Amino acid sequence: MEGKQERHQTKSIRCIVKLGGAAITCKNELEKINKESLDIVSSQLRQAMISGRSPPTTGPGMDWSKRHGESEVFCIEDDFGEDAFADSSRFVVVHGAGSFGHFQASKSGVHKGGLGQPLVKAGFVATRISVTSLNLEIVRALAREGIPSVGMSPFTCGWSTSERNIASADLSMVAKAIDSGFIPVLHGDAVLDELQGCSILSGDVIIRHLAAQLKPEYVVFLTDVLGVYDRPPVEPTAVLLQEIAVREDGSWDVVKPVLQNMTKVETTVAAHDTTGGMMTKITEAAMIARLGIDVYIVKAATSYSLRALNGELRGNIPDDWYGTVIRLVS
Amino acid sequence: MEGKQERHQTKSIRCIVKLGGAAITCKNELEKINKESLDIVSSQLRQAMISGRSPPTTGPGMDWSKRHGESEVFCIEDDFGEDAFADSSRFVVVHGAGSFGHFQASKSGVHKGGLGQPLVKAGFVATRISVTSLNLEIVRALAREGIPSVGMSPFTCGWSTSERNIASADLSMVAKAIDSGFIPVLHGDAVLDELQGCSILSGDVIIRHLAAQLKPEYVVFLTDVLGVYDRPPVEPTAVLLQEIAVREDGSWDVVKPVLQNMTKVETTVAAHDTTGGMMTKITEAAMIARLGIDVYIVKAATSYSLRALNGELRGNIPDDWYGTVIRLVS
Repeated sequence: MEGKQERHQTKSIRCIVKLGGAAITCKNELEKINKESLDIVSSQLRQAMISGRSPPTTGPGMDWSKRHGESEVFCIEDDFGEDAFADSSRFVVVHGAGSFGHFQASKSGVHKGGLGQPLVKAGFVATRISVTSLNLEIVRALAREGIPSVGMSPFTCGWSTSERNIASADLSMVAKAIDSGFIPVLHGDAVLDELQGCSILSGDVIIRHLAAQLKPEYVVFLTDVLGVYDRPPVEPTAVLLQEIAVREDGSWDVVKPVLQNMTKVETTVAAHDTTGGMMTKITEAAMIARLGIDVYIVKAATSYSLRALNGELRGNIPDDWYGTVIRLVS
Repeated sequence: MEGKQERHQTKSIRCIVKLGGAAITCKNELEKINKESLDIVSSQLRQAMISGRSPPTTGPGMDWSKRHGESEVFCIEDDFGEDAFADSSRFVVVHGAGSFGHFQASKSGVHKGGLGQPLVKAGFVATRISVTSLNLEIVRALAREGIPSVGMSPFTCGWSTSERNIASADLSMVAKAIDSGFIPVLHGDAVLDELQGCSILSGDVIIRHLAAQLKPEYVVFLTDVLGVYDRPPVEPTAVLLQEIAVREDGSWDVVKPVLQNMTKVETTVAAHDTTGGMMTKITEAAMIARLGIDVYIVKAATSYSLRALNGELRGNIPDDWYGTVIRLVS
């Protein structure tokens, strides 16, 4: 076991990516995948994973199944000459639920616990069926691009909560999968809760935990808007926050653009957040950034997301890039 | 942790069921589920799990998803008045792959290991996509019957092999799921192998390990033929072996019917098994039976399988029951 521990410490994770539920599913339609977006996201992930290597040709797909009558990828043995993902691909993917799972979870109150109630137990089962079916489709989409993806449900991995905070999260299988050259694909899930019986473990909490444990070089959140705004982005006067500086104590400031109405004092009002979850998002991202890990919040399936995934933003942020960068300043 | 350990010891598992790949999929058609058989199997499992309780009405389904345009089960909160599965349902389900996964695994040689080879790695990914998609459909079928099923992939649970034998198998999540009132649904899977990189962990090996650790009252193998025969069942002179007595040293005899050509000396010829896998099947079952656990091998979706699942065979075997019983004699 000591040998394995060592390996985890020497080989670092390059990137943890969150595929936001809103970016890969159709928000307002029950259990519908945004296939167009997911296909572009998968293709960009592939490009990012093999960046720096040549030749970046499209490799053979890894979904050899016959499901849904879709593009049946046949395995031609000669295609498997080299492993494009051998070295540079240490990514972890986490996705949200979007229009999968939320209906089942909220209808039954899984997040509030109480497995002794038949409705809650039924909701737990229904939620897991829904989110694991989304997970399977995302693993398929990545595999069609030749990404060696393996689905890993947090519930099955033994992750559990205690009043919704992570109580136990065994990362050993995630680490072993990465060390064996695979891309783990985790997701928001219904899990057991030590105090209330069951709970919902969100993709964002998973990301925060993985980032703290695996210390990736950077974290990318793929969303359905350009980044984080100072108010709900549907409002015409909403301003995109392009750069947020986080200090080691966790406090933060918007450094680009320069805003008049926003000071760091607002970091304390997350409980009364009326800005469309903006404060919550920044607070979550700031908790990662204070570990010294850059966080990029960017619109999925755009040229901006590809550049973020490639790691192009680690130095200066180009003027022609749009999104939100949240990083530590000393 | 000690408290939990205690709970596992006091509450016993009633039954481990193997859904044979041949019984729930169409063997000769890639990735096709035998829906008719699976639906009857699910219904019989439901009946067996709530047997001894009243009223055994059909409860509300637990698959609230919209997938495949199939029977959309709506959740009506009033339906969830009592939990029919509260006490008597301590079952574990394990299924084989049938026409799922085998093509992907054999085409790439996953069972022989060598994850450094791109073809093997791709085969590993493709195999897992295929077997987890079957797992999801089985979990769905059980949930539609109101069975609180949760899919648990051995790979994700951290099960691994060492030259195809189980090297590590963390049962804690399986035990926790059972203690929380769920029915874990495991499956044959592609897993990491300590020596050869990767391997295939078969459903039968999983069953043997689970039986040894969880000590169920009985184990049922659901197959596509009546039971174990003295030669391939397609041969017209094949005789159904109805009762096999196992001694504590693992040796065994067919005690019903009385056969002339079969003696216990044949237990040593498993390596040259030319009887359609019969010897292998008996040897596997005998390893479970010598722990004092009755094993029933029976045709799925028949009145015989329902009686086996119900536990009706634990005393005398009725004359009007057909199948193979393998049990310990002192």
